[in-house]
Amino acid sequence: MDIKKTITIVKIGGNIIDDVSELKQFLSDFSKIEGAKVLVHGGGKSATKMAKSIGLVPQMIDGRRITDAAMLKVVVMIYAGQINKDIVAQLQANNTNAMGFSGADGNLIQSEKRNHPTIDYGFVGDVQGVNTPLLETLISNGIVPVFCAITHDKQGQLLNTNADTIASELAIALSEVFEVTLNYCFEKPGVLFDADDNSSVIENINPELYAKLKAEKAIHSGMIPKLDNCFNSLSKGVQKIKIGHHRMLQDKTEIYTNIEL
Amino acid sequence: MDIKKTITIVKIGGNIIDDVSELKQFLSDFSKIEGAKVLVHGGGKSATKMAKSIGLVPQMIDGRRITDAAMLKVVVMIYAGQINKDIVAQLQANNTNAMGFSGADGNLIQSEKRNHPTIDYGFVGDVQGVNTPLLETLISNGIVPVFCAITHDKQGQLLNTNADTIASELAIALSEVFEVTLNYCFEKPGVLFDADDNSSVIENINPELYAKLKAEKAIHSGMIPKLDNCFNSLSKGVQKIKIGHHRMLQDKTEIYTNIEL
Repeated sequence: MDIKKTITIVKIGGNIIDDVSELKQFLSDFSKIEGAKVLVHGGGKSATKMAKSIGLVPQMIDGRRITDAAMLKVVVMIYAGQINKDIVAQLQANNTNAMGFSGADGNLIQSEKRNHPTIDYGFVGDVQGVNTPLLETLISNGIVPVFCAITHDKQGQLLNTNADTIASELAIALSEVFEVTLNYCFEKPGVLFDADDNSSVIENINPELYAKLKAEKAIHSGMIPKLDNCFNSLSKGVQKIKIGHHRMLQDKTEIYTNIEL
Repeated sequence: MDIKKTITIVKIGGNIIDDVSELKQFLSDFSKIEGAKVLVHGGGKSATKMAKSIGLVPQMIDGRRITDAAMLKVVVMIYAGQINKDIVAQLQANNTNAMGFSGADGNLIQSEKRNHPTIDYGFVGDVQGVNTPLLETLISNGIVPVFCAITHDKQGQLLNTNADTIASELAIALSEVFEVTLNYCFEKPGVLFDADDNSSVIENINPELYAKLKAEKAIHSGMIPKLDNCFNSLSKGVQKIKIGHHRMLQDKTEIYTNIEL
């Protein structure tokens, strides 16, 4: 029997990025994870702050942020430049051989500009494919890839892309060659029955319970795309998915949400 | 006899970076260079523009730019983010498998914060070492590394570093395993006898001629660190160095300066 090696993928959200000491602690914990690993990071508030400081007005349609050309420049600078390189330098200081990537680098993640019938999202990309052979080569050479949420269309256009989706697509692609555990880390201890009660963590959720909670409107709307992503990833070969606070990575907490089929 | 493979290293300056159509043409030409290759890019005027637009005042001591913490944030965003990812995406569109790096990525270029007896340059790094084995692994996997002028100290600190020096240090490191041709591309057709006369290109310069021209003050002061870098690189194993306009890369011009020992 062909036994696959394991890999841990961790996605961290903006709340960790925005908190210098929390990020430092997280990166130290992440460095201690044994074996192959990948980090995917969101953006935090710096891009919005920078956009405001240079006079850009956030464009929103139906509550969705629109990435126009000026905003794309800002997110590329902040996500692929400032945040990504700061994380890489800190991981290197922790003796983790991190290498920071956008999807354009090595054509690691190719996407296409979103073509929506009624909303022009601007320079937003939906993932089309992952360059798995190159990613595997990097990982097998001891590299720890650190992805920001920028991809490209292979025609010279960079595109803003959802970080949760990037983590999910990387997990699916890598599940061809690895047993993948995907960890979504955020400020809450897991998926909650009651969004205002951190002690109401759903410890296990499967498609049946998910359908039931959705029907009862008992799932916070922000959690729905995250969980859709998770079930999609599990159905496509990802072994294990956890949602919770990043403390779960070092077994500092036993409370988190386990997503299962 | 052990015959080394060849590699071409190209450094481009700010004038190309600042000119959208010139950069596009250059990247198309660069993509046509056969065999292994590496690109090193400077910064251009975007970092200064961005610094001004967020209210930073450039700090200068004795005509030298000082990189304080706020300016470092800006150069990291612009060099490693905006410029580097734009170049990588354009090269990918030209079917060149580019991957963009700061020195922190994969610990490819480690530096130390400059310690000057009288001037505090701020977050400026002098190159200490290149991770040649990893760089060679990437290149042998068909990757075309694209370096911006940011390095790190392996203690978590990013550092602003001279792009000419990065090109030179990469050339020296790679000369252990490759026959290296290093091309410094800028807006002039080469090193000039008369800085105001583009037809006065010095076609060949060796240490004797260089010493003579320096003694006669016939070399533009801005060219001196560049040439010092060149002779240093040649004495440490780099095979061939050319200085000129980027047209020289595609033999569109036969005029450039050849640096020789």
